[in-house]
Amino acid sequence: MSIVIDDKPKEECAVVGVYNHPRAANFTYLGLYSLQHRGQESSGIVSNDNRTFYKHINMGLVADVFSDANNLEKLKGNMAIGHNRYSTTGTAKLINAQPLVVSSKYGPMAISHNGNLINARFLREKLEDEGAIFQTTTDTEIILHLIARSRKTTLIEKIIDSLDQIEGAFSLAILTRDKLVAVRDSRGFRPLCIGKKDGGYIVASESCALDILNAKYIREVKPGEVVVFDKDGMTSYWLNHKVDICCCIFEYIYFSRPDSRIFGEKVDKARRTLGKVLAQEAPVEADRIISVPDSSNTAALGYAQESDIRFEIGLIRNHYIGRTFIHPEQSMRDFNVRIKFNPVKGVLKNKRIVIVEDSIVRGTTLRHLVSMVRNAGAKEIHIRVSSPPIKFPCYYGMDFPTREELIASSMTIEKIRKYLEVDSLHYLSLEGLLNSVPHENCGYCTACFSGEYPIIPAQRVKKYHLENGIVND
Amino acid sequence: MSIVIDDKPKEECAVVGVYNHPRAANFTYLGLYSLQHRGQESSGIVSNDNRTFYKHINMGLVADVFSDANNLEKLKGNMAIGHNRYSTTGTAKLINAQPLVVSSKYGPMAISHNGNLINARFLREKLEDEGAIFQTTTDTEIILHLIARSRKTTLIEKIIDSLDQIEGAFSLAILTRDKLVAVRDSRGFRPLCIGKKDGGYIVASESCALDILNAKYIREVKPGEVVVFDKDGMTSYWLNHKVDICCCIFEYIYFSRPDSRIFGEKVDKARRTLGKVLAQEAPVEADRIISVPDSSNTAALGYAQESDIRFEIGLIRNHYIGRTFIHPEQSMRDFNVRIKFNPVKGVLKNKRIVIVEDSIVRGTTLRHLVSMVRNAGAKEIHIRVSSPPIKFPCYYGMDFPTREELIASSMTIEKIRKYLEVDSLHYLSLEGLLNSVPHENCGYCTACFSGEYPIIPAQRVKKYHLENGIVND
Amino acid sequence: MSIVIDDKPKEECAVVGVYNHPRAANFTYLGLYSLQHRGQESSGIVSNDNRTFYKHINMGLVADVFSDANNLEKLKGNMAIGHNRYSTTGTAKLINAQPLVVSSKYGPMAISHNGNLINARFLREKLEDEGAIFQTTTDTEIILHLIARSRKTTLIEKIIDSLDQIEGAFSLAILTRDKLVAVRDSRGFRPLCIGKKDGGYIVASESCALDILNAKYIREVKPGEVVVFDKDGMTSYWLNHKVDICCCIFEYIYFSRPDSRIFGEKVDKARRTLGKVLAQEAPVEADRIISVPDSSNTAALGYAQESDIRFEIGLIRNHYIGRTFIHPEQSMRDFNVRIKFNPVKGVLKNKRIVIVEDSIVRGTTLRHLVSMVRNAGAKEIHIRVSSPPIKFPCYYGMDFPTREELIASSMTIEKIRKYLEVDSLHYLSLEGLLNSVPHENCGYCTACFSGEYPIIPAQRVKKYHLENGIVND
Amino acid sequence: MSIVIDDKPKEECAVVGVYNHPRAANFTYLGLYSLQHRGQESSGIVSNDNRTFYKHINMGLVADVFSDANNLEKLKGNMAIGHNRYSTTGTAKLINAQPLVVSSKYGPMAISHNGNLINARFLREKLEDEGAIFQTTTDTEIILHLIARSRKTTLIEKIIDSLDQIEGAFSLAILTRDKLVAVRDSRGFRPLCIGKKDGGYIVASESCALDILNAKYIREVKPGEVVVFDKDGMTSYWLNHKVDICCCIFEYIYFSRPDSRIFGEKVDKARRTLGKVLAQEAPVEADRIISVPDSSNTAALGYAQESDIRFEIGLIRNHYIGRTFIHPEQSMRDFNVRIKFNPVKGVLKNKRIVIVEDSIVRGTTLRHLVSMVRNAGAKEIHIRVSSPPIKFPCYYGMDFPTREELIASSMTIEKIRKYLEVDSLHYLSLEGLLNSVPHENCGYCTACFSGEYPIIPAQRVKKYHLENGIVND
Repeated sequence: MSIVIDDKPKEECAVVGVYNHPRAANFTYLGLYSLQHRGQESSGIVSNDNRTFYKHINMGLVADVFSDANNLEKLKGNMAIGHNRYSTTGTAKLINAQPLVVSSKYGPMAISHNGNLINARFLREKLEDEGAIFQTTTDTEIILHLIARSRKTTLIEKIIDSLDQIEGAFSLAILTRDKLVAVRDSRGFRPLCIGKKDGGYIVASESCALDILNAKYIREVKPGEVVVFDKDGMTSYWLNHKVDICCCIFEYIYFSRPDSRIFGEKVDKARRTLGKVLAQEAPVEADRIISVPDSSNTAALGYAQESDIRFEIGLIRNHYIGRTFIHPEQSMRDFNVRIKFNPVKGVLKNKRIVIVEDSIVRGTTLRHLVSMVRNAGAKEIHIRVSSPPIKFPCYYGMDFPTREELIASSMTIEKIRKYLEVDSLHYLSLEGLLNSVPHENCGYCTACFSGEYPIIPAQRVKKYHLENGIVND
Repeated sequence: MSIVIDDKPKEECAVVGVYNHPRAANFTYLGLYSLQHRGQESSGIVSNDNRTFYKHINMGLVADVFSDANNLEKLKGNMAIGHNRYSTTGTAKLINAQPLVVSSKYGPMAISHNGNLINARFLREKLEDEGAIFQTTTDTEIILHLIARSRKTTLIEKIIDSLDQIEGAFSLAILTRDKLVAVRDSRGFRPLCIGKKDGGYIVASESCALDILNAKYIREVKPGEVVVFDKDGMTSYWLNHKVDICCCIFEYIYFSRPDSRIFGEKVDKARRTLGKVLAQEAPVEADRIISVPDSSNTAALGYAQESDIRFEIGLIRNHYIGRTFIHPEQSMRDFNVRIKFNPVKGVLKNKRIVIVEDSIVRGTTLRHLVSMVRNAGAKEIHIRVSSPPIKFPCYYGMDFPTREELIASSMTIEKIRKYLEVDSLHYLSLEGLLNSVPHENCGYCTACFSGEYPIIPAQRVKKYHLENGIVND
Repeated sequence: MSIVIDDKPKEECAVVGVYNHPRAANFTYLGLYSLQHRGQESSGIVSNDNRTFYKHINMGLVADVFSDANNLEKLKGNMAIGHNRYSTTGTAKLINAQPLVVSSKYGPMAISHNGNLINARFLREKLEDEGAIFQTTTDTEIILHLIARSRKTTLIEKIIDSLDQIEGAFSLAILTRDKLVAVRDSRGFRPLCIGKKDGGYIVASESCALDILNAKYIREVKPGEVVVFDKDGMTSYWLNHKVDICCCIFEYIYFSRPDSRIFGEKVDKARRTLGKVLAQEAPVEADRIISVPDSSNTAALGYAQESDIRFEIGLIRNHYIGRTFIHPEQSMRDFNVRIKFNPVKGVLKNKRIVIVEDSIVRGTTLRHLVSMVRNAGAKEIHIRVSSPPIKFPCYYGMDFPTREELIASSMTIEKIRKYLEVDSLHYLSLEGLLNSVPHENCGYCTACFSGEYPIIPAQRVKKYHLENGIVND
Repeated sequence: MSIVIDDKPKEECAVVGVYNHPRAANFTYLGLYSLQHRGQESSGIVSNDNRTFYKHINMGLVADVFSDANNLEKLKGNMAIGHNRYSTTGTAKLINAQPLVVSSKYGPMAISHNGNLINARFLREKLEDEGAIFQTTTDTEIILHLIARSRKTTLIEKIIDSLDQIEGAFSLAILTRDKLVAVRDSRGFRPLCIGKKDGGYIVASESCALDILNAKYIREVKPGEVVVFDKDGMTSYWLNHKVDICCCIFEYIYFSRPDSRIFGEKVDKARRTLGKVLAQEAPVEADRIISVPDSSNTAALGYAQESDIRFEIGLIRNHYIGRTFIHPEQSMRDFNVRIKFNPVKGVLKNKRIVIVEDSIVRGTTLRHLVSMVRNAGAKEIHIRVSSPPIKFPCYYGMDFPTREELIASSMTIEKIRKYLEVDSLHYLSLEGLLNSVPHENCGYCTACFSGEYPIIPAQRVKKYHLENGIVND
């Protein structure tokens, strides 16, 4: 039995692109490496020496996929795009791994995509009716078909024409023989930023990918913007969708790395504010603040600072856990959490403990953690969650369990408190959440908390699955 | 340095299909195994349980690709198609391995293809102009695009409509959710036969694939025939091309296994006749007949029988040689032949030896063999070739070196004799070749000997290469 | 180029043993998993069903070595021992991986060893003179030869007789057909503890291996103690060496996990005290305390608490880094540190920063970190090290660079400060170190700081290398 | 289910050694490659640059073990020995693969062994009593212990002293820092020959390993001879055993390659004589002679020549079968033979067929072959076996099934005929066999036919198995 012990929503992808740098593939590799947290299933890079496209893609972590240095060396040329992918079981197949490369009338084209299309089913059926054949089950292949079929004249016009037909979340890097194109959907769900180094350009899902390269942060790709990098430098075009911006607020809560800057703000700063506001909303008399490492560390520090209670490391996280961890004992669920976390008894014993957690999905992992902390001798346990209760599915690129599995969709907070067996439980309010994040640059999508979806899905907005799909090896 | 020591034309593929048998994938596997000689680069099977398609494809020999039994077990359903592929370097990539599977308006479809299209470039450009995108560099993807785009109503009509647009060699097995379709082009270049076992049907490139299953041989798919296997049994349709049949005569000379029956005749019988006619055309006073094992064995026995000279095993072939043999010594070419063949000195010493060889392409390997036989003590060496001189490239699925590399395209027979350093050299005449094979069922393509191509290529008939191709890992 | 970016001493091993539990191999696996930090080069388990010994050992991390569940399942029986190994290059070979298994007059025997023998060369030469043959280059094989050759009667007598001949550090788990034997050398250099679960016994290098199993901590194996687990339960014997106890103080500083208890004390508590004493010894006016994560976290919290300066997370550590990380750019050393750490600019900008680090070996990594923190905008940077300067090599199981490479062996503290380019640098005093750790149970080896070695090596105490060694694949 | 379809005795090993050639490892590799038929389980080479020993060993075929060219390149030095191993299941483990390398008082030593010791159990117990520890379950490790413990002065004296204690079959290549030593036991059970190339020496189990290197055949290592190659050239010593020579006659019948020379004679010539004598002893009126390819080809040609009946290729053998062939259908035994052989119907139909087979062990495979030939239309089937009935186990290095499984040990020839369902069955007589092979150089062991063992085993001469063995991965 291989096990899943994270009880977190899954991000679906990381996107990186490099234009006009002799180390294009190497930079893409390092960028993907720094964005490993956005997708651990597969990784790939496509480069281009203005003539031939070179590709290496495989299942696994970035460092594993490129552990043979030859695989990097053969990716010649001074432009490249890369992709890390997370995916739900069943479609986690090599054939779906990205970047996706095709040849078309326009020449070869490669694409990396972070996000999720709302009208994928409709578009796919329409394209099949027109005679298109599909070799993957990804949304991304749809975008390439639309571009290849567009009647517009220039590539940029074709891209805009195609993306105007799409509803949903997409941050894209597109590579052609002489251009790198970066696009963000008009609502700006997912982040995408631009950097510069040695006269070349880099685009990446988060700014930490620029930091690893010691590249200069320029700015974000704006919602609805189509940024073209070619011999004429960097030029902006715009999609024709006119809609309100609604960035994914979960990027601040959990997804993005704390050292990244997204939506115009440092994640670390926003996340610390979440902890402070949470301390104001739900103070508690306690002896120690601990976090569920590592994602809740910053919020826990914010909570500790505001409440003036001492922050301690009460849980040690084992970082050697890999994707293929084999659990020897199917019957002993309790081990699952112990594999990842161990309590520091000296910190917990006879203390009133506040555990700061960034979000609760199913609640199963947290329940085990609470039990471990209790057994380590904690007198009281108070859970403080730096986000509101998650009650609704996401259609824009986060992979939650089904609504039935979301603990907050069916239980009251008091019931959850009893289930977790803690002395108190408080979630950050939606208002407190919105007050903690900056609003100069964008509005936010809070659909997973509020159920208010920015796009009314005209059709069934279930994650698209081929009803009679193809199962690959 | 990995080495190529075969100096033979390469066949491009083996095709197998099974309809209506609970062991469909297993039978396909065994069939592919028996057809390993037609393609050693990649192997794959796609099965179908009337709903979902299952696929396992990888680079390597059949037995290696399926060495993990799980890979076979998960190929559920009672229909399947399979494919072995040989390919020229550069396009020998996993993404090009077959069967190719796509989803389309008609549902999922898989295809296995043996042959080569003449108008691939034209069709590909036309399809790209219409907005099609290509993910492989194979001719086969073109066929799927044509089917998906056909305006005809039924699948069979779509298939016929599509194949009517194609010029070239194709023996196909197509799998849909409820049908297996077997097709042979109107000229019938490549073989394809039909068998039956336990109420199910099997199609395969050669009849030895039926033998391994202990299945009953029914008949060949006829040139231009489209045989549909579905719940109504086996039904024939026809392509609209009306052309002369011209089966590839090289299948008798070298490609097919001697225990197969193709084009309505046993290969073993035809190949023995080649040896006999060769003995009549080019007798020689000698002590022993030996063959270059294993492909020339049958012709050598025919030659020995007709000439009444004793047949002996004068060369031992090492059968452990694999695709990845690493030669330690780049500088010592002579080893290459020794790795595969060793002379039996007791047979050769002080004897006048006739070496029967089925065909000569570059001549390099044979030259080394002659030298080995000479060093083993042969007094005289006479080469007898059971086919005419190969002077022209093939556009229908055989992979020769370029014309410049074909020894007989630039040298007279006397020059070749001197190059090989033998006492005499005789090729079978084209007339003798045509007299040795049956003519009730078909005419033959002899273009590689005569330069008379059955299809005048209206456009450049070079093997299609993407000019600015995609290089995969 | 694969890279080494840790500038830390390397521990050589983790030891685990389980006696009398139906899940012996599974428990050993989980124990090894929790001790991954003590050795990442190879991992192995040997189990025993009272009759046959079962073994699985390979290079790599625990989770990788056992990623195929079959490898665990076949390790039958209710006793097992396991081992994680770190080793210096050159001898990092599968043949040296442990546990080592042999058959002897006494029957099959397996051994796991943490430590380093001082008189290995002498013993090996003596054994070879007597006709012994060696198949590995490990010290551990010597122990097995000594046991097999001992003239004593019982196994326990043989073990004591053998270990009495050995000088050096050894914490051992020995498995015979019906016994598990745990031993710690008389000085007690390396930790080894005993736990209990469901009537079975567990021995492990650190108590965190008991925690992951939810086993009860009993006590340490005492220095010089030979603990035998068999059908008569747990029995103690003693080695005849009478020497002062001198536990490795570096286990508290860096090696052991903070949630472990070793030498009778919680590591977390000792490590926090180091930070507090350091703050008393070397206070500084500053705005923020940050740690070099994760090993310095606890000391940094202690420093922050004592100094009443705010603790923040100023460096993000990438935990996806694997053993095989390929660095694409040989020329850009600066990347090496960026691959592992990224500064959080919001925390550092315009602040006076104290970086708490647990130890400095070469100083190269820290220098890069300082430069990163400086570039992130820190106004002042003060380094506080929670251990004294490391000036001398270790002969008891820690793998330092050569003395020349130890920065503190050749530079004054002021020179090091300049090299690191920081505003101030202070190390913990040796006195402060000794005051921070408990003394009821043991004395300490501080040779790497003081040069006062507990064993005067009568012979060359260089790490034993076969002068004309065998290089394996 | 992976399958075994060979019904042949298994040889246990191939031995190769090279002294004083800059391409020592490469030559060893090619030699092992040509001797692949003597062992397909594991392969390995140890080389030596007069100082350090280099080693690469793995499970699998020679070409696979060295498919990564780096593995060959790192085997430096101008001397090397190599080994191919076949072994019975259970002990087919990497730890038992050879060459075995140890360090000892004398320095590092490596050994390759073909054969089987009769008194292994006795020696092992004696050595364990004296304190030796064993890391493998091979006989070979015993030899190294004996050498390391010998009280003699020089290496050669130690080797002779050790081998004088051993009963059984052994052809050895031993590598020390400055010598290559080749030894054959005093009875000379297994072959071993000496060749020369470019001033260097080569020893190999069969002369075909010299041919692949284009090396000059010098002579055999004589029974009881110890040949030392060092800076003084080639020097002979002798074991003190004085016994009758009894070479394994099965080497002529089946094991050795027909193009090899062993025991002073060409195998091809001896094997053809077997066929001729068989034709004299057991003539039959028939239309065609066929062989079971490839091992019976030469005997079949001899039979055909003597009987003046036409030889034909009636069975095609599939040479792509690998060690890991997965049979999909456990229930269908009949497939097993079809996977390897297919009948050529045109040769067999309506004909009276003589099948020449070199030996029958269990008879199961032959029975399936007969059934296939019958179904292909043969009117009559006559089996002629070019060896006597195998009735007894071999203790000198051939791996037969147990006596119960040997069909001729429990059935009369008439019963076997009925079991095989053939029209007639004749075995070569023991007298005929002995008359067919040369007697100038040696006598022969015919124990498997006659039960007359050259060594009366004073103790249980069962293949040595550790009663409480170690099971490795």
